[in-house]
Amino acid sequence: MMLDPGYSEEERRAIYRAIGERRDVRSGFVDRALPKDVLERLLASAHRAPSVGFMQPSRFLVVRDPAIRRAVHDIFELARAEAAQQYRGARRELYDSLKLEGILEAPQNLCVVCDADSRRGHGLGRASMPETAMYSTVCAIQNLWLAARSEGVGVGWVSILDPARLRALLRIPERYVLIAYLCLGYVSHFAAEPELEQLGWEKRATLESVVSYDRFSETEEP
Amino acid sequence: MMLDPGYSEEERRAIYRAIGERRDVRSGFVDRALPKDVLERLLASAHRAPSVGFMQPSRFLVVRDPAIRRAVHDIFELARAEAAQQYRGARRELYDSLKLEGILEAPQNLCVVCDADSRRGHGLGRASMPETAMYSTVCAIQNLWLAARSEGVGVGWVSILDPARLRALLRIPERYVLIAYLCLGYVSHFAAEPELEQLGWEKRATLESVVSYDRFSETEEP
Repeated sequence: MMLDPGYSEEERRAIYRAIGERRDVRSGFVDRALPKDVLERLLASAHRAPSVGFMQPSRFLVVRDPAIRRAVHDIFELARAEAAQQYRGARRELYDSLKLEGILEAPQNLCVVCDADSRRGHGLGRASMPETAMYSTVCAIQNLWLAARSEGVGVGWVSILDPARLRALLRIPERYVLIAYLCLGYVSHFAAEPELEQLGWEKRATLESVVSYDRFSETEEP
Repeated sequence: MMLDPGYSEEERRAIYRAIGERRDVRSGFVDRALPKDVLERLLASAHRAPSVGFMQPSRFLVVRDPAIRRAVHDIFELARAEAAQQYRGARRELYDSLKLEGILEAPQNLCVVCDADSRRGHGLGRASMPETAMYSTVCAIQNLWLAARSEGVGVGWVSILDPARLRALLRIPERYVLIAYLCLGYVSHFAAEPELEQLGWEKRATLESVVSYDRFSETEEP
């Protein structure tokens, strides 16, 4: 029985290292632009991601202009203040103390959108689950995120944004689905653990609590 | 200015190798179950993925029972036949010739769902973009996909399925969003290029056609 041999121990270790050490980075960005070759390697990694029916629906807008980033930051501030209203007491104090984005500190931001109704791929795999177009774009983001970790580049996903305002600001046509707004840049260091875990916002779930075999078993909030 | 040094040249090469050599595998699965430790490493990689507000919403159902896989395969066949009706002529012939899943050949399948309304994470980051819960689960899948490549394990995402039928079969409660159904197993080899590219289903888009800077530029079907 012929089997693909997989990678060497060292190579596997590098991949598991990136998976374990990747962080959602909101602080510690350094004011140094990414060199063209590094940025292109990261974008190429995203572009190499799987896509349903090989439709390759992901589009990448690199935002470096400080004026645009300031306008995005304004959109963030509005959404942050609105979202704050769901918290009370100690939880609200913790929320107010969180650093949730690095839009202005990271010299480059990256808006990632999906051309979800593109004819590319000829609809293959999308008839019964059309959301797989959007999911293809998320796979691209995770590729970039891991490659970035290995380059010493931090990535932070900012989801506290009004998609309609962001779309208008960046003049993204209606046909594209806004998937993510990322902050991207060299960092002084990566945290050993997720910040939201360190600060007590949420506990880590065990692996056993999220896996079941053959019959789905529902766990209480793991 | 202190900078995180990133990884060694060898480590970075390993990560880019996995990104470049990862394939959506539909054929060539070998009838050998994954050892417990390998399967657990892959699931742990998925579980280490980023999640909005550290909510960790992903749940993993490993399906090994052949009777269940046969029933999933029946659901696939129905959806495949229905989707076939959108194609005519040579495109239809090509569609009919495609191998689109390895549900029965891969000794383990993996259904991945998202507990999208979980209180975990206390709603952080989901007020304006609630779809980020589902996207967190897709990031988990891409982690697993890359780790699997390094272990010589093929992964194929089957999206030609009726989600309602699959949910009923696997008894997945309403509160979970069905994200993906994957085939997982050792393979004889990995193809050098995506099969849909090799067979002429779709062409590869250039990187330049999917990237723009500061102002969004729309390309014609790249």
